[in-house]
Amino acid sequence: MNIALVGIGKIARDQHIPAINNSETWSLAAAVSRNGAVDGIENYVDFHHMLEIRQDIRVVSLTMPPVPRFDFAMAALNAGRHVMLEKPPGSTVSECQALLNAAHQNRVSIYATWHSRMAKMVPAAKDWLSGKKIKRLAIIWKEDVRRWHPNQDWIWQAGGLGVFDPGINALSIMTELLEDPVHLKSATLDIPENKDCPIAAHLRYVHPHGGDVHAELDWRQTGDQIWTIEIETDDGNLTLLDGGARMVINDVETTSDDILLNGEYPRLYAKFAELINGGQSEMDLTPLQHVADAFLLGRRMTTEPFIEN
Amino acid sequence: MNIALVGIGKIARDQHIPAINNSETWSLAAAVSRNGAVDGIENYVDFHHMLEIRQDIRVVSLTMPPVPRFDFAMAALNAGRHVMLEKPPGSTVSECQALLNAAHQNRVSIYATWHSRMAKMVPAAKDWLSGKKIKRLAIIWKEDVRRWHPNQDWIWQAGGLGVFDPGINALSIMTELLEDPVHLKSATLDIPENKDCPIAAHLRYVHPHGGDVHAELDWRQTGDQIWTIEIETDDGNLTLLDGGARMVINDVETTSDDILLNGEYPRLYAKFAELINGGQSEMDLTPLQHVADAFLLGRRMTTEPFIEN
Repeated sequence: MNIALVGIGKIARDQHIPAINNSETWSLAAAVSRNGAVDGIENYVDFHHMLEIRQDIRVVSLTMPPVPRFDFAMAALNAGRHVMLEKPPGSTVSECQALLNAAHQNRVSIYATWHSRMAKMVPAAKDWLSGKKIKRLAIIWKEDVRRWHPNQDWIWQAGGLGVFDPGINALSIMTELLEDPVHLKSATLDIPENKDCPIAAHLRYVHPHGGDVHAELDWRQTGDQIWTIEIETDDGNLTLLDGGARMVINDVETTSDDILLNGEYPRLYAKFAELINGGQSEMDLTPLQHVADAFLLGRRMTTEPFIEN
Repeated sequence: MNIALVGIGKIARDQHIPAINNSETWSLAAAVSRNGAVDGIENYVDFHHMLEIRQDIRVVSLTMPPVPRFDFAMAALNAGRHVMLEKPPGSTVSECQALLNAAHQNRVSIYATWHSRMAKMVPAAKDWLSGKKIKRLAIIWKEDVRRWHPNQDWIWQAGGLGVFDPGINALSIMTELLEDPVHLKSATLDIPENKDCPIAAHLRYVHPHGGDVHAELDWRQTGDQIWTIEIETDDGNLTLLDGGARMVINDVETTSDDILLNGEYPRLYAKFAELINGGQSEMDLTPLQHVADAFLLGRRMTTEPFIEN
């Protein structure tokens, strides 16, 4: 299937282009970007123009930041194209619901991706947890923003989510793993006095059966980078490490054979092909809802200015 | 039907108690409060104790602030009681969804009320707008916080919503009136430097057919108090005044005969009785979702400290 990639930035080059090019299902037929370009294919600046003249391309994948993304997604859906969205699927929950409605009306597929749910050990962790009682779940998601998000101004601006941009990956795994939905009880958001969005967040959730569920997100981590979810149950303990790539059960590292494709993004694109072929959409807004709830309920603490360089 | 009222504060005394006492359907059988008490009925401090010993009371109405409300609502639902919630229905969208699930599981009714939707002219305005194309909708909601929310500390604290506490009333009317859902495009939130929540907000929405939809919320209004929604359509103009109590169509004030009960709260309690008798729930979270989206996407501007007295 021909696909157009819209927004040629870091995540497109690091993940989307290799995943598409290594796939037998997909063919990268066009790129749309204001300033990036992909060698060997047609590049466009004007998305509406591309939609009009490239009727051979029925599928688009959007990787630009969340705030401008809605207009592109809606234009694509209304032009009868299937749409895949990088996470987070939008800048508000309500706009995502509008996109889902538009996909239904236009009888096309929309796929709100959560790439961390495709991390290697997440399915095995979910299987292991099934039927067990959660006593404690702790997200520790601490990375160096200078290393992973260099010069990404949008990520600090209103709607850019700040530390929730990586943190939503942890929330997407948590909501995938837990059988019972949790909801936020309290939160503090540490916001640099020169930025709109938090550099750190401390979140405490209510679990319906009393499990102690909390999250520590921090962008000020130098040295070892931590993307860990620790889970204690009534029948043993499980830890996901490296964002779900590794799993330790009762102090023993466990691997899974049940992997057909290698890598989060190849699995996302395989899933998207399945959805289109099945005439289905998938748009789970739970992780974004949790972030919106954190901004709604969270107490804001002003912290020292963040100067990138 | 016997009903217990939980949280005996200003809104309970001003609205809920008169509405219940003037109703032929309802009988106020108990009150639960830490410091308030209602003459002539049994008063309780411990809600769980009341639920246990007053099996004759199958219905509770909760009027305490949103942050503590969840625990009371969940306890009541799990004790098999029907539950009515003052607006906003909770401190996060996710916790409201958990309450709705619990109501279904316990086969009881839950009613998330939006009292402004019961304002006298809202149904007539909705009828008049039906089928018309919206060109412009402007919410102007400006009141004096010192006058309407004296000593309500919780309203300024994280989760208290600030100016969105009255503003959500306007959003509840807007979402009731509009046939097509809107979503937030941009927002600024003015937050006093000594408070957690905004004292003013400026909201701009995307309307799917291009209508210009925006809202101005402000708590610093002295003199005339303004709770107005102005609507321009392709077939005339409509203005709701005084929070929906009055309506002007094409410069002529219009009244409605189609009113069976007088007042917003009597109509809420009548609707709740209908829901219970029909075995139904109503929990439209759209207004709260819009507020969460405003906190998620809104740009925070620090303004001068707010000193109440």
